[in-house]
Amino acid sequence: MIPTDLYPADRLERAREAAAGAGLGALLISPGADLRYLTGYQALPLERLTCLVLPVDGEPFLLVPELERPAALASPAGNLGIEITGWAETEDPYALIAARLPAGMARVGVDNHMWAEKTIAFRGVLPDADQALAGEVLGRLRIRKTQAEAEALRRAGAAIDRVHARMGEWLRAGRTEREVGRDIAEAITAEGHVRTDFVIVGSGPHSASPHHELSDRVIQPGDPVVVDIGGTTEDGYCSDSTRDYVVGEPPAEYRRLYEVLLTAQRAQTDAVRPGITAEQLDAIGRDIITDAGFGPHFIHRTGHGIGLETHEEPYIVAGSALPLEPGMAFSVEPGIYLPDRFGARIEDIVICTDDGGERLNRTSRELVVLP
Amino acid sequence: MIPTDLYPADRLERAREAAAGAGLGALLISPGADLRYLTGYQALPLERLTCLVLPVDGEPFLLVPELERPAALASPAGNLGIEITGWAETEDPYALIAARLPAGMARVGVDNHMWAEKTIAFRGVLPDADQALAGEVLGRLRIRKTQAEAEALRRAGAAIDRVHARMGEWLRAGRTEREVGRDIAEAITAEGHVRTDFVIVGSGPHSASPHHELSDRVIQPGDPVVVDIGGTTEDGYCSDSTRDYVVGEPPAEYRRLYEVLLTAQRAQTDAVRPGITAEQLDAIGRDIITDAGFGPHFIHRTGHGIGLETHEEPYIVAGSALPLEPGMAFSVEPGIYLPDRFGARIEDIVICTDDGGERLNRTSRELVVLP
Repeated sequence: MIPTDLYPADRLERAREAAAGAGLGALLISPGADLRYLTGYQALPLERLTCLVLPVDGEPFLLVPELERPAALASPAGNLGIEITGWAETEDPYALIAARLPAGMARVGVDNHMWAEKTIAFRGVLPDADQALAGEVLGRLRIRKTQAEAEALRRAGAAIDRVHARMGEWLRAGRTEREVGRDIAEAITAEGHVRTDFVIVGSGPHSASPHHELSDRVIQPGDPVVVDIGGTTEDGYCSDSTRDYVVGEPPAEYRRLYEVLLTAQRAQTDAVRPGITAEQLDAIGRDIITDAGFGPHFIHRTGHGIGLETHEEPYIVAGSALPLEPGMAFSVEPGIYLPDRFGARIEDIVICTDDGGERLNRTSRELVVLP
Repeated sequence: MIPTDLYPADRLERAREAAAGAGLGALLISPGADLRYLTGYQALPLERLTCLVLPVDGEPFLLVPELERPAALASPAGNLGIEITGWAETEDPYALIAARLPAGMARVGVDNHMWAEKTIAFRGVLPDADQALAGEVLGRLRIRKTQAEAEALRRAGAAIDRVHARMGEWLRAGRTEREVGRDIAEAITAEGHVRTDFVIVGSGPHSASPHHELSDRVIQPGDPVVVDIGGTTEDGYCSDSTRDYVVGEPPAEYRRLYEVLLTAQRAQTDAVRPGITAEQLDAIGRDIITDAGFGPHFIHRTGHGIGLETHEEPYIVAGSALPLEPGMAFSVEPGIYLPDRFGARIEDIVICTDDGGERLNRTSRELVVLP
């Protein structure tokens, strides 16, 4: 059961106030994480418009395709006390919405992930309203997790930890990345997620390609293997953790690379506290890696925020002067990649607390040597 | 192995010509089906910009986050002979693209599913270019399947048929919809898909809610059960088929409803031929269902196109005067739903041929009575 305090009813009012403060006339929220955050309604973005309309002056309503109205009513949105209206197959949902918004609205906030088909259709019916991003307003609400949200992320972290803890059941030389990946995907749902979001098994030279996913490459003895996996729990909150494995004995140079990486990642997770900026946190790990001669091989940011989405604010990246605050949840995942040879990445989700940081992934960060 | 004729190299040129014909200066294609169609590169839309830039005058190039460049080069896009360029974590990919497009471009086509974050960022760097939908141009290419694409859809249809053929292994009274759904999802990948896209198991009153997905409801003897399932094959082409099952003996009224539905759906699949319009095809089934007294309970369109996406053009819906042409592939899936009681839907994918239609789903369309 999803805890009742995870989707509290006051979010719509807080969003309305924030939209007013940003000078917007309304928010138009299409399916995705913001719709779930505000109403508990989980819908996929599809060709028919589903849209939560949140006017700054006026009552909010959720417009859904008629055939989906039973599902919307059955969702947590049905208990919010807001109007849930269906549009029939041959009606124009954009015109229906425009007719119910105040005339002459100057600025409207559209869902950050709304499809161009839909933003362009809204521009057609609201030609005088500048379109801004709803995420500028809603992001500030989502970025600071409540106690209930932190608990949900703890549960998600523990669930993905259970999968990493079992890796020896599946990861063996002679199997392909895809075969191992299939077992991992099954375990991700078995260990407490409702959906597997991604399974990266990068073996041998594939460990040097950070977003390599799965292939038919046969895992060889001595291969370093990057395993980066995550799923979504029934609550809607996401997990994401990366650990590194070797079947047999890795090259000596790999062990040296790994020690540097582990030192860097530990220094970063130890450094999390209110007030440190995202770019300072990134630099702590990047400097250690650079001092050891691997600077050019740490080719990505340190991390991304996490919550109802796997990737959300705050991004832990050079160039972001955002100070961390209690409640922010993000990954700390530096990596070192030697192209065409091997690489490694160590990833924990961390929540900034009142005086430090709490790691939500607790399996050992040492290189895991499998038989 | 993906057949080499499934992603032919001339698609970029055909898209460029079509864009020129539509008065566009360039197409900006973000991750999704159109990017896969044009380059074979499968990428997920994420927060970092990936974009195929296809100028009408000039050379196309694919801009990807630096860390994903190895994966892009390893994909079929790497064999197209186009430039694949990475942008580093602290660069501005939108500015990079704008700098490489002709000054004073009046109209640019953006990917239909490009996120508002990205269309708004592009508007910032190309303030004088009106944004139109790239799908207006690319949809006309994708809507007519080549022989190779039709073969791919046949394979996908046969794979989902194999799952429906095994339904008796999993669907039993006393199990929950979710438990049955988990087995179905596993079988979808085992029987030849690389990804399960959706699993709808609507039992008893849930069979009356067309987009109900899965719940913890325990399937009861006598429950009608709508099973609507689909996945994506390695080729990228999708399957989608709905069949109806009963564990034990259904209510007599349900059998009557089902006979009407089966008559309607058969009449529709028999009627597919070049020249019939989408709305005429919809009406053939809708009229039969209406004459039997169930008109108000057929609450959605007849069908949707299918290809690299589960839902694409052409939509088989009242109001569309589009004449069907050889090569168009779409679902024929009428349904009848008695709210809070039960419902049914029968779905086949059909390809319009030179003189008729070819059904790609061949399991029996009769109600399946399971022990």
